[in-house]
Amino acid sequence: MEYSPLLMQLIEALRALPGVGPKTAQRMAFQLLERGREKGLHLAAVLQHAMQSIQHCKQCRTFSENEYCKLCQSPLRDSSLLCIVESPADIVAMEQMGHYHGIYFVLMGHLSPLDGIGPEHLGIDQLTSLISKQTIKEVILATNPTVEGEVTAHYLSERIKPYAIKVTRIAHGVPIGSELEYIDSGTLAHAFLGRDEIV
Amino acid sequence: MEYSPLLMQLIEALRALPGVGPKTAQRMAFQLLERGREKGLHLAAVLQHAMQSIQHCKQCRTFSENEYCKLCQSPLRDSSLLCIVESPADIVAMEQMGHYHGIYFVLMGHLSPLDGIGPEHLGIDQLTSLISKQTIKEVILATNPTVEGEVTAHYLSERIKPYAIKVTRIAHGVPIGSELEYIDSGTLAHAFLGRDEIV
Repeated sequence: MEYSPLLMQLIEALRALPGVGPKTAQRMAFQLLERGREKGLHLAAVLQHAMQSIQHCKQCRTFSENEYCKLCQSPLRDSSLLCIVESPADIVAMEQMGHYHGIYFVLMGHLSPLDGIGPEHLGIDQLTSLISKQTIKEVILATNPTVEGEVTAHYLSERIKPYAIKVTRIAHGVPIGSELEYIDSGTLAHAFLGRDEIV
Repeated sequence: MEYSPLLMQLIEALRALPGVGPKTAQRMAFQLLERGREKGLHLAAVLQHAMQSIQHCKQCRTFSENEYCKLCQSPLRDSSLLCIVESPADIVAMEQMGHYHGIYFVLMGHLSPLDGIGPEHLGIDQLTSLISKQTIKEVILATNPTVEGEVTAHYLSERIKPYAIKVTRIAHGVPIGSELEYIDSGTLAHAFLGRDEIV
């Protein structure tokens, strides 16, 4: 005994979503059918439209349904500063911070040889052509402070060196509001060795 | 700063799925865009088709894109036995068990006055007309052994009484393979009071 063919198809198709196993997919299908048909239809329409229309911004590679994203089109951004991040979500975090007004480049991942993700997947050619064309004075490496992020940052700094542009990395240290007791020793070592003089 | 309008719409629409918050919706949208466009388009198509075509079986109320579901159409099922369950998933569990060959009725929920779910939402009228029409000899109440399931079973038994049909409830007791030490006392009390003589 199984569900009706179409219901089986729906449950199977929902499993394309990350983190959704058979039981969750079943619960989603039942809930949409029982209490959310209109929302389900809306999701279907938006999903189709998004899959067909959202591309990567031709300059910064973030997701955008236009050729160039809003930030790359903006005349208010300082195009002498380039911040390299791993994901579009990182742009949101940087913008919420409010201290940065330059342009971005999104790698859409990080170097991960084990997963077969090399420089060719991170748009490095596009990045170097952007750096060589634009009048960039500083490149800020804002990849995640993880092993992969650090490796990627190191790789990028090596690739950018020939262009004789200032390359910086976001600072590592103790997060604001945290307690030393609970900070891992790697972070604490960074914070200790990179200590600033109080003037 | 926000994502592009269409990406925002997609993230918002994905939140229609149960258990999906803003961060999960974002991760789903990114993953579909990065690595699953075809799966995303497939999901959109199946979702639209399912939302429009899947209805309730006219006899047992389970989900079906046909007027009557496969089980209700089957001539092999014993229509003198009626098993009442809460959800289509319970039919699957019963069928996997393999000891039941009668027909089903799916409540699509249980009585829950706090959530505003009364008898009118559980298709009780459809159930009583099914019972009065068919030559049913036994009704098996297989609602969940939860407070709501028990209340619903009690309510159903009262409603079926006037038809002078045998009404049974699935047995409560210790599950096979469990250890007494870890069984809750309510279940253990049921198992103790309902003990069977070994013959």
